[in-house]
Amino acid sequence: MAVETVSLNRSQGGVQGVYRHHSRETGTSMTFSFYVPPHQDGAKLPVVWYLSGLTCTHANVTEKGEFRKACAGLGLIFVAPDTSPRGEGVPGDPAGAYDFGLGAGFYVDATQSPFARNYRMWSYVTEELPELIVEHFPADLKRQSVLGHSMGGHCALTVALRHPNRYRAASAFSPIVAPSQVPWGIKALGGYLGDDKEAWRRHDTIALIEGGARVFEFLVDCGDADPFLAEQLRPELLERACAKAAIPLTLRLQNGYDHSYYFVSTFMADHLRWHAARLKR
Amino acid sequence: MAVETVSLNRSQGGVQGVYRHHSRETGTSMTFSFYVPPHQDGAKLPVVWYLSGLTCTHANVTEKGEFRKACAGLGLIFVAPDTSPRGEGVPGDPAGAYDFGLGAGFYVDATQSPFARNYRMWSYVTEELPELIVEHFPADLKRQSVLGHSMGGHCALTVALRHPNRYRAASAFSPIVAPSQVPWGIKALGGYLGDDKEAWRRHDTIALIEGGARVFEFLVDCGDADPFLAEQLRPELLERACAKAAIPLTLRLQNGYDHSYYFVSTFMADHLRWHAARLKR
Repeated sequence: MAVETVSLNRSQGGVQGVYRHHSRETGTSMTFSFYVPPHQDGAKLPVVWYLSGLTCTHANVTEKGEFRKACAGLGLIFVAPDTSPRGEGVPGDPAGAYDFGLGAGFYVDATQSPFARNYRMWSYVTEELPELIVEHFPADLKRQSVLGHSMGGHCALTVALRHPNRYRAASAFSPIVAPSQVPWGIKALGGYLGDDKEAWRRHDTIALIEGGARVFEFLVDCGDADPFLAEQLRPELLERACAKAAIPLTLRLQNGYDHSYYFVSTFMADHLRWHAARLKR
Repeated sequence: MAVETVSLNRSQGGVQGVYRHHSRETGTSMTFSFYVPPHQDGAKLPVVWYLSGLTCTHANVTEKGEFRKACAGLGLIFVAPDTSPRGEGVPGDPAGAYDFGLGAGFYVDATQSPFARNYRMWSYVTEELPELIVEHFPADLKRQSVLGHSMGGHCALTVALRHPNRYRAASAFSPIVAPSQVPWGIKALGGYLGDDKEAWRRHDTIALIEGGARVFEFLVDCGDADPFLAEQLRPELLERACAKAAIPLTLRLQNGYDHSYYFVSTFMADHLRWHAARLKR
């Protein structure tokens, strides 16, 4: 699989890259960012996947996430994919809304027309992009973990539950934990997956836990001034499901913080230290 | 002077604000960002001014500068003004270039038509905005310092040389040190100040030092992969002038770094620690 370098910038002693490639899954050109910390020649490094939220591309966390200093100190690769296919002919929200279509792939493989051809973000993030980065970068996928924000937090928790042996740690900022029960998720899962409620359950953290999926533990931060907390995020559902399933959950409601990268960047280094401790076991 | 709140976001335990006000100097609406670290009620805090480079607004460093964690830990206010007047009727570069006019005020008070009415960034940054922040925020202007990038580094060094008792520390990333001698500066100073070479000298770090201006010391970082280094920045001129004038200069050529915020953010915390040590003396 060929990959094209869009930009390379030295930062925190390592290299922040942005790359583009043609995706077999989405049928489009896809862009992702990839930070490689300072390391010894020939070393293979653990990988943290960062999955972004609604409206984002790879660029938001790359510019605003404040992850590089921690990744440099901890020796972590940090990969940030885009959140949807884009480009000519890729269908978006019929009404042009921000919460469906472009920038809002919800990390599912769509089954519904006209989205099924391009919207294959689950396979892109869990299969195609891992294959590509192993081929091109000093990435050790025996040591990988996943982290996400909002819609990306939703995916971080669900991929960890569906691949508990693949990801050594999973955490989230402000995740959508019950897409089957909240407006953002009902719109997205309905639009991409239609009425197939079994398919919805495979992309719903609460439903997966209720169905028996397990992980070793979760770390989740939410801001208590997040305007989406009560209607879209509903961390209390995660708290209840984890308690019932005996999944250790560290859920922190951070005082005065909102849904923005001013919040995410505040706790980014803390999450990365938590990941590093689990990646190095 | 009235000030309007554009946004407030909690970050790193403090508050990142963005504000707008009508400027008497520029005759326009001006936007600036202002970070207040966690502090005790009633405390007045030292202030670091950050002056941005060509094409920037307040937003670039606010989003990409990675200054908040250090400012929170060190108890520093961080203010980032815009780099030019903007809005209806404000003239820009006749050819639409990025290096003159909008986003490129060069921190001078223009004397030439049609720029003299609005382009008063020197008075805006050194007089009007300090008055405004003392009125509205817990800022202690007996303890202030200045820091800038590129065109803003140019201003940081010149304001420190012209007001050596006002700023307790001055540092820069990739500064334009000799605008009278390099293409960016010749275009800007010529456009804003005409042929008045005495006025040029008041906005040229090298000329000010040669004319007898002194500061206690400077800290300057440049990337050795900066594409503007040899033609526009010319740190060797600063090195020579400071040596001749016995101004202690810490000039660091950082290996592999370019002109971007990936570079600035890497060394931001280091500069802020250097400022804090001098602000707390």
